[in-house]
Amino acid sequence: MNMQSVLFTENELGPLQAQLGKTSLMGKTISSHAEQVDAFMRLPLEVPGHGEAGGYEHNRHKQNYKYMHLAGNLFLVTKEKKYATFVIELLSLYADKYLTFGFHVQKNTNPTGRLFHQILNEHCWLFFSSLAYSCVAHEMTDAQRNHIVEKLFEPMLDMFTNKYGHDFDRIHNHGIWAVAAVGICGLVLGKREYLEMAVYGQANNGTGGFLAQLSQLLSPAGYYIEGPYYHRYAIHPTCVFAEVLHRFMPEVDIYNYKDGVIGRTVKALLATAYPNGKFPALNDASKSMGVTDAGVQVAVSVLCKHYGCDENIVGMAEIQGEVWVQSCGLALSDEHEKAEQNGAIVTPNFPSIELNEGADGDKGAQAFLRLQGNDSSIAQLNMNYGQHGMGHGHFDTLGITFFNRGQEVLNEYGFARWVNVEPKFGGRYLPENVSYARQTIAHNIVTVDQKSQNNFDVAKADSVHGIPHFFSDDSEACIGVSAFANDHYDDVKMQRSAFLLNDERFEAPLLIDLFRLQSDTEHSYDYSHQYNGQLVRTNFSYTSYDELLPLGENNGYQHLWKLASGSAPQTSLISWLQGHAYYTWLGTSSNTQDEVIFTSVGAADPSFNLRNDSGFTLRSKGGSTLFASVLETHGYFNEEFEQSTDARGQVTDVRVVGHNELGSVVEITSEKAVFTLMISNQENVTKDSQNQLEFGGNTYSWKGFYSLETHPVQGEK
Amino acid sequence: MNMQSVLFTENELGPLQAQLGKTSLMGKTISSHAEQVDAFMRLPLEVPGHGEAGGYEHNRHKQNYKYMHLAGNLFLVTKEKKYATFVIELLSLYADKYLTFGFHVQKNTNPTGRLFHQILNEHCWLFFSSLAYSCVAHEMTDAQRNHIVEKLFEPMLDMFTNKYGHDFDRIHNHGIWAVAAVGICGLVLGKREYLEMAVYGQANNGTGGFLAQLSQLLSPAGYYIEGPYYHRYAIHPTCVFAEVLHRFMPEVDIYNYKDGVIGRTVKALLATAYPNGKFPALNDASKSMGVTDAGVQVAVSVLCKHYGCDENIVGMAEIQGEVWVQSCGLALSDEHEKAEQNGAIVTPNFPSIELNEGADGDKGAQAFLRLQGNDSSIAQLNMNYGQHGMGHGHFDTLGITFFNRGQEVLNEYGFARWVNVEPKFGGRYLPENVSYARQTIAHNIVTVDQKSQNNFDVAKADSVHGIPHFFSDDSEACIGVSAFANDHYDDVKMQRSAFLLNDERFEAPLLIDLFRLQSDTEHSYDYSHQYNGQLVRTNFSYTSYDELLPLGENNGYQHLWKLASGSAPQTSLISWLQGHAYYTWLGTSSNTQDEVIFTSVGAADPSFNLRNDSGFTLRSKGGSTLFASVLETHGYFNEEFEQSTDARGQVTDVRVVGHNELGSVVEITSEKAVFTLMISNQENVTKDSQNQLEFGGNTYSWKGFYSLETHPVQGEK
Repeated sequence: MNMQSVLFTENELGPLQAQLGKTSLMGKTISSHAEQVDAFMRLPLEVPGHGEAGGYEHNRHKQNYKYMHLAGNLFLVTKEKKYATFVIELLSLYADKYLTFGFHVQKNTNPTGRLFHQILNEHCWLFFSSLAYSCVAHEMTDAQRNHIVEKLFEPMLDMFTNKYGHDFDRIHNHGIWAVAAVGICGLVLGKREYLEMAVYGQANNGTGGFLAQLSQLLSPAGYYIEGPYYHRYAIHPTCVFAEVLHRFMPEVDIYNYKDGVIGRTVKALLATAYPNGKFPALNDASKSMGVTDAGVQVAVSVLCKHYGCDENIVGMAEIQGEVWVQSCGLALSDEHEKAEQNGAIVTPNFPSIELNEGADGDKGAQAFLRLQGNDSSIAQLNMNYGQHGMGHGHFDTLGITFFNRGQEVLNEYGFARWVNVEPKFGGRYLPENVSYARQTIAHNIVTVDQKSQNNFDVAKADSVHGIPHFFSDDSEACIGVSAFANDHYDDVKMQRSAFLLNDERFEAPLLIDLFRLQSDTEHSYDYSHQYNGQLVRTNFSYTSYDELLPLGENNGYQHLWKLASGSAPQTSLISWLQGHAYYTWLGTSSNTQDEVIFTSVGAADPSFNLRNDSGFTLRSKGGSTLFASVLETHGYFNEEFEQSTDARGQVTDVRVVGHNELGSVVEITSEKAVFTLMISNQENVTKDSQNQLEFGGNTYSWKGFYSLETHPVQGEK
Repeated sequence: MNMQSVLFTENELGPLQAQLGKTSLMGKTISSHAEQVDAFMRLPLEVPGHGEAGGYEHNRHKQNYKYMHLAGNLFLVTKEKKYATFVIELLSLYADKYLTFGFHVQKNTNPTGRLFHQILNEHCWLFFSSLAYSCVAHEMTDAQRNHIVEKLFEPMLDMFTNKYGHDFDRIHNHGIWAVAAVGICGLVLGKREYLEMAVYGQANNGTGGFLAQLSQLLSPAGYYIEGPYYHRYAIHPTCVFAEVLHRFMPEVDIYNYKDGVIGRTVKALLATAYPNGKFPALNDASKSMGVTDAGVQVAVSVLCKHYGCDENIVGMAEIQGEVWVQSCGLALSDEHEKAEQNGAIVTPNFPSIELNEGADGDKGAQAFLRLQGNDSSIAQLNMNYGQHGMGHGHFDTLGITFFNRGQEVLNEYGFARWVNVEPKFGGRYLPENVSYARQTIAHNIVTVDQKSQNNFDVAKADSVHGIPHFFSDDSEACIGVSAFANDHYDDVKMQRSAFLLNDERFEAPLLIDLFRLQSDTEHSYDYSHQYNGQLVRTNFSYTSYDELLPLGENNGYQHLWKLASGSAPQTSLISWLQGHAYYTWLGTSSNTQDEVIFTSVGAADPSFNLRNDSGFTLRSKGGSTLFASVLETHGYFNEEFEQSTDARGQVTDVRVVGHNELGSVVEITSEKAVFTLMISNQENVTKDSQNQLEFGGNTYSWKGFYSLETHPVQGEK
């Protein structure tokens, strides 16, 4: 029997073998894999029975498929027989036992497998094990092959496409793993009907299968509906399966499908990452997932080989430190080596980008604005005005997060989950994920009448989306984004406009935020910010409570301790220290008699599942209302060296000059200059529109979406 | 005029010049200094007037002396005139202005200077400026010298020795800066009477001056009474002044004074540090101060030159990355270079050590136990059974801290202070330092009747100390320390015995802790632990409160929110996740009806001055009582890679078998073995004592301080 690997041809093995022992990324990756696999192979083979999610058995099955996959590749690349033997023996052991395991008892909404508590994990198992099998099948006896095919792979294929056939065509990240696993296994076994089904769906009518998933889950810009955390999870089978189709189903022309959506979606994923390589936690997400994830490594390798390499891609590989062990990864490794020899490796620098949402790109968008400050640090502002994100969606349309100086400053809570920590509810999503993390109040946003958007109804939320207003990144001084969300609360329309302002007078870009609510009736508006750090000072007095009560009874408020509150002055100043940087926020609204409330997450948390993050809320009552705020980054603190500089910022005031359906005007005063920001609130504004407004007897006029005027204070320049 | 630097001879300059541009530690240090000074010299010269502690003016004066000091050295080493010019011009500007500044208004107990709010800082100013002057004086005109001497240095000397003469002989860390500054300045000005006064005190009778300070502040073991944080602060003038005396007062034979106490105290300081180089926060202290501090750099350089170098010292220099720019530092740099060429640079590995306290070493001690685990990580247990630590002392005799896997696990709160953060009370000690951080309940210890030790009376606390029982570090399996504190509570005597147990069955050393209280009457005992991390699980149910109240009204309890509480089972299990490691604590007492209380720091904190650290307390009521607990380190969690292993530990129970005046016996049960720990409670025990106890009809006998017996569970080995 000939070698029948689905990811390597005989001709491709030579160049990979040539990398053995080299210090190229490919050479280092292979060495690292060999070290890991060798360590695992020193343990006795073990195929355990059922276990809890996140428990020992669960993890062992995951390790088994991971190391079989790596060992399969290593066998082909190194020719060392021990790797093939390991795969063959372990697969045989699985074949001995698989049908003796019953199905797990179902504990959540996902169907269960024979190895795992949910078939998602069983899909992953089949995906990696099929790849491993394809590397070593030619080393097996017929009897070994038949045993594994009949007792393991065929029953799995049957389970996925018959027993759970109703789930196979689901358009979801789980679905991508399902079709990739079934397609690859079918191909490996010479059962091409499974490959066809995986690509075109069971009904072969475009309602299911890989191509339908690519069409429906990815927007034209390549944004993945569930957000970066699930995107990096889905990108792994997406890219591997694409490479398989490229090799075995050339008629699909997968890399050109939908004008190259595979490449676009990899680029889109990379473009969401913070400057430190971590992905923003949009929707249910870990706060620590980043570009070093194995799936992202595969994706960057594919991008390089099939869509052309550039210095950002090479720089990303440098951060990742490894490449995909496959000819795509070799192409990237070679490019990296070349750049290294030329001293041309740079830190990736992704420009600002607006990624549209929806299959046709008409369901709102996600904005990622980046600006480098005078302190040379890159600030990143994310704003969400797209779709809800399906089952993992948060109720935070128009929410923002802000990052600079290497840390998230206005932060997302992320998911309420201790992933894979078995004693914490099996490592699964916790009840607090629903009761807190997904609620509107958990985000940097305005919560209306202390209720979450769309009444926390997923179906309702899935039916609406944000409306882009403008996205402007073609300035070095002031870039901005604005969007509407008019269908998220009954009776209240919302518009948020956020800007990054670079000015020689400030160390770092100012974040300017205008949140406008339109309503004919009075509402309670909670303009909230989540941060981590130590409060340093305020410009108002407040009462700090001797006895703590939750801020409310439901919609996430039940999880917030009300630590302190006070009457807001005309403009409230709240300053805190996070890591080495000071942050000063000044906020105001167009109403009077506002209140500031300081909160801490952790109430109604009987199992200590939540992190105790800090927050504050500017609570305002009114009809149509404009909130305006500025967040200044300043100074430096180093406890170890007992250094502190510029612990007070330069911005002294922010004032709402006026706002109406045509536009909003705010004035920001700093020690050395006054800035007037004028923005259009009209949906049909273009960059050529002429705008004119009158507030307080003064006329404000500008062209386009917005305009910033700077007036130095007398004596300053 | 000849060069008259007090730290360099002409002959020593050549070898330092030879380091310019080299990649040795000395070469790198000089380059780094030049870069910093060049940047500072680009700013206009500025001598500001009065300012707040931690404010702009304060920091500017500090920068001025720091960079003058570095520039003075750089002038001698590089011969670049610009550095001398900078020092001369800035000193002249100070001389122009100094006497025009009145004295600051006094705000705390420290006398005020003309530049700073407390003369401590003015001493530092004189110390570094005198050193700078000594490097450049030969470049000045007579007029320049006279101006600076008459308008600046002489008035300062007069202020320190006359106006504040009553304070000059104070035995305190401030006093070391005072005598070093006055002594060096006097020497530089050719006024040797000041040097004599600095060394022998104003009365020249041994009650004041540098030698008295060395005698009274340092124990024979070299421990500094206020703890490592103030030690590293005091070590700077100590070592510099010692080097000056070595050169200009050979009759003192300073490096052999008190059998080489200078060298011993440097070694003692280094021996307190955690494996990550940070100093444990004993008494008022920052949590982030470490061996990279500039004073510790000077100290390590002095140690190398005058007391002989070894691989630990070279390893420390490697961590520091810089050396003292002086012949001592050159000696260290040369040793480092040699080691580097031989590939002989190792991570410093300090053995366990007991550092006695008191001028005669009879006022208790501080223990630092270290043991490397099977996971290769070094565990460190600190136990305090020495003196109170004067004005910066905490009421925590018998307190412990525990560190492993690169992090403090049972943690000290440290000081309540945001050092140099001007808007936080001028960066000074906060009221919460007294009301919380120094209180007994803030530590890992038993608080009796919810009151702090010695009724929080400093004078009373200064009059008592702990009594060493045994310190045993000569085992690889189980090392331990035990001590008494019989004078810290009326009517209650205390004994704590803490052990690190290494066993093949555990990944990391177990911390075993026996806290015994002896009293004829019933008391309330709060056995408390402070940690940072996420609670993972318990083995008992508890009530988590909907409404938070402080745990008490005073003695630090007013700052603790009572989050949850429950009846303790026979043995309570509390497990948490910190960083990448899981920790499981099992604790019990010899009483029944105990209660477990979960707390969080932050109540009664109107200015958000406190960190919100976590803690738990096992509250027990009884007369003579033994608490016994085990802390197991296990498993691994990595959120980024979604890995979790061994989230549950192996220890399943800890049980008090019995305790009386002769000894205590506890039994620890794990999945694979039962451990019986027997310890002597008799003050006069020696390593040859024969001990025999009977509890529950069983006889327990052993020789020496303690004994550990291991009984594998049936079927295990």
